[in-house]
Amino acid sequence: MVGRKDVLDLNDFTAAEIEQVLRTADAMREILTRPIKRVPALRGKTVVNLFFEPSTRTRVSFELAAKALSADVVNISASGSSVEKGESLVDTVRTLQALGADVVVMRHSQSGAPYLVAQQVQASVINAGDGWHAHPTQALLDLYTVREHFGRIAGLRVVIVGDILHSRVARSNVWGFTRLGAHVVLCGPPTLLPPLDGHTDGYGLPPVAVCTDLEAALEGADVVMALRLQRERQQAGLLPSLREYIARYQITAERLRRTAPHAIVMHPGPLNEGVEIAPDVARSDRSVIEQQVTNGVAVRMALLYLLTGASDER
Amino acid sequence: MVGRKDVLDLNDFTAAEIEQVLRTADAMREILTRPIKRVPALRGKTVVNLFFEPSTRTRVSFELAAKALSADVVNISASGSSVEKGESLVDTVRTLQALGADVVVMRHSQSGAPYLVAQQVQASVINAGDGWHAHPTQALLDLYTVREHFGRIAGLRVVIVGDILHSRVARSNVWGFTRLGAHVVLCGPPTLLPPLDGHTDGYGLPPVAVCTDLEAALEGADVVMALRLQRERQQAGLLPSLREYIARYQITAERLRRTAPHAIVMHPGPLNEGVEIAPDVARSDRSVIEQQVTNGVAVRMALLYLLTGASDER
Amino acid sequence: MVGRKDVLDLNDFTAAEIEQVLRTADAMREILTRPIKRVPALRGKTVVNLFFEPSTRTRVSFELAAKALSADVVNISASGSSVEKGESLVDTVRTLQALGADVVVMRHSQSGAPYLVAQQVQASVINAGDGWHAHPTQALLDLYTVREHFGRIAGLRVVIVGDILHSRVARSNVWGFTRLGAHVVLCGPPTLLPPLDGHTDGYGLPPVAVCTDLEAALEGADVVMALRLQRERQQAGLLPSLREYIARYQITAERLRRTAPHAIVMHPGPLNEGVEIAPDVARSDRSVIEQQVTNGVAVRMALLYLLTGASDER
Repeated sequence: MVGRKDVLDLNDFTAAEIEQVLRTADAMREILTRPIKRVPALRGKTVVNLFFEPSTRTRVSFELAAKALSADVVNISASGSSVEKGESLVDTVRTLQALGADVVVMRHSQSGAPYLVAQQVQASVINAGDGWHAHPTQALLDLYTVREHFGRIAGLRVVIVGDILHSRVARSNVWGFTRLGAHVVLCGPPTLLPPLDGHTDGYGLPPVAVCTDLEAALEGADVVMALRLQRERQQAGLLPSLREYIARYQITAERLRRTAPHAIVMHPGPLNEGVEIAPDVARSDRSVIEQQVTNGVAVRMALLYLLTGASDER
Repeated sequence: MVGRKDVLDLNDFTAAEIEQVLRTADAMREILTRPIKRVPALRGKTVVNLFFEPSTRTRVSFELAAKALSADVVNISASGSSVEKGESLVDTVRTLQALGADVVVMRHSQSGAPYLVAQQVQASVINAGDGWHAHPTQALLDLYTVREHFGRIAGLRVVIVGDILHSRVARSNVWGFTRLGAHVVLCGPPTLLPPLDGHTDGYGLPPVAVCTDLEAALEGADVVMALRLQRERQQAGLLPSLREYIARYQITAERLRRTAPHAIVMHPGPLNEGVEIAPDVARSDRSVIEQQVTNGVAVRMALLYLLTGASDER
Repeated sequence: MVGRKDVLDLNDFTAAEIEQVLRTADAMREILTRPIKRVPALRGKTVVNLFFEPSTRTRVSFELAAKALSADVVNISASGSSVEKGESLVDTVRTLQALGADVVVMRHSQSGAPYLVAQQVQASVINAGDGWHAHPTQALLDLYTVREHFGRIAGLRVVIVGDILHSRVARSNVWGFTRLGAHVVLCGPPTLLPPLDGHTDGYGLPPVAVCTDLEAALEGADVVMALRLQRERQQAGLLPSLREYIARYQITAERLRRTAPHAIVMHPGPLNEGVEIAPDVARSDRSVIEQQVTNGVAVRMALLYLLTGASDER
């Protein structure tokens, strides 16, 4: 990541860059196991969490990552009144930069918003989720968790299940896993699948397998990643009923018999209890959901460390 | 408190444990009088304030207590949108634990919620108020304030006045004061008094005197603790009018003539101006309301210190 | 500022006091250019941001100023539910003081509210904006920015343009700039101008020129300060239309030909894009808007430093 200013998506990361993040995260994991989980690496640096959509876990993950590196953290919750009306997004971030922000972690409901901002400010921008587009730090923590479990990514069969169409998590994971040589299968109801024939939409995706038959998809899978289902999809008429979704797409112990015996189950959280994953599976040894959360702090520490280190050299 | 993981209520505290908290709080008070109010005891530890009900004073008190001990503090205001829908409470706290939380300070509108959580996570849970049930840190700071004033708790006559029925402050104070040998009298309008004949309700209370006649209750009292009146009680038909409540239950200089001459007046705050306590009394030497606030920080420092120290030994 | 407890407005600042703040801010600017932007001056001190009106930039500016001095910062957003109903404003701040607040930074929709509070607490109170009345830290950062640019304030022609009537920024700047010897001109639509004939209103203002003709006002100006236009002024019937406001009062390159050739353009932010200032001007070399933001942190550091230093001597 030498010379990189921003983390916007994984489509512009080389395999070597991803590996560098994962290796750096190893060092950060070690720091997090110490009795005093804190190093002075980012002392006097300022990280701003600018969240235009509500979030608990991602915001807290970045906050704790920054604090473990001794950075100052400022939280701005912009869902509603606190970001002033009439001011452009770029001006808001320019102001944060003028206030002293070294890194702006940004979540926004508009796909592409962090790109617009990153082009026009000198501060580093980390995309913490933009619309349906990308969520690169989630993908990096997923890659880290899979690599931690299997010791490698290349050659694994990764099945991503659920609302692929609206999922920034799925998109960024497709980039990350394919870049590192995994075989990715996207599976969900036809109404929640995008027309994934190569580079068909605005941002493009590498060609991956797409199917609607979960049983078939799970054959020989090493990794099963269930996506969060938004209840509003049903209101939009994209989903006949929650019951039917559960019947056909819930990850159950029964269905997991088709996977490789060592397969793991992942979820980006928060989990709708009893929907995406059967409760007994979610609480079983196969589930690595809590490891994903823990690894998220280490991966975000690695990104903050690499971005601010890189900025010294620019 | 050796071996104790959580602080959920005072009903399972021994007198010796309460004394230990109060002695430790003495040491913390000393720290708070220093020019630099800060010790490194909890450096690298993470305290999460998870508040499902709005609160200013309790949240800030815990925040400053944690910071004085050099802990990292993360605030999560969950009244509304920021805690994701569909996720169970236990999963939310498990996620916080996976993110690195050592102590979760939790306020929730449901009685018993912190118990459910504490059973299923390894992090320490401190109940910062659950429904009508318990508010143990408030009771400990009240005990500390009374002990600071009188040098003892045993044998004092403590009159708690107001909406006993819905008061977690009253319940936890009954446990604390009786455990240390005080005589507790609960006094309020009949509609705001619980049927306190021993262990009649879900959580039980030790037998204490109950009455509706404030003048009689105040005879010889050492401590008069007025509870906050929620305006919505009137809408619920439990209170004829604010004027009548004031006429019969406001703590006035006139009524205080019945108490012991050295009696002190307490209130957990925030005070409804001119309702629970007459303004001249609230601002008089008898009022220890501000000392309660100051002592709250010391008591919460003591709890954070003891819980995280204990966790090293577990 | 020896002996000064509060910063409520600039009308009670001597020129020497203002100069002391600006000189101290020079030292703070130097700290902010270091690789590690942090000094231990306020270690163990607590600064509370108590904002009864939403704000991003002013709150974050104070937060980063306090953190650069190693103070602990607590944010309380009181717009809505978190400040408890029924409690008086003075009691709220007394509670913060009892919790350990050394400085309370306060924004409130009621003019004069910080005065009421400051009289009744020992903690230092900094007015971060009260109604239409005063915003002294904005004026100090404006003075600092002008002095940084021109090396002096005395003798400059400062034109403040826009909604003068409802602007606490304008009021505090009138005090600050006239005290240091600048010539101030207030310019705006007649409906948004106060009747400024000396000390006509509750708080008074020194006599300054007032006009409605922007072209005339700009003749020979050294500083052009545009104020934020609140959209609700139009609903209140004080403004015929945004288009007309722009036509007559927007700061454009064309209009700036009338000023002194070196004139700078200022705005307290947030800018309504394309309203108060033409976009090409806002992004030109003449605009010092981002410098204002950066200087705001230094000026607030200076105030926090001077107030807490002064409090040691009291």
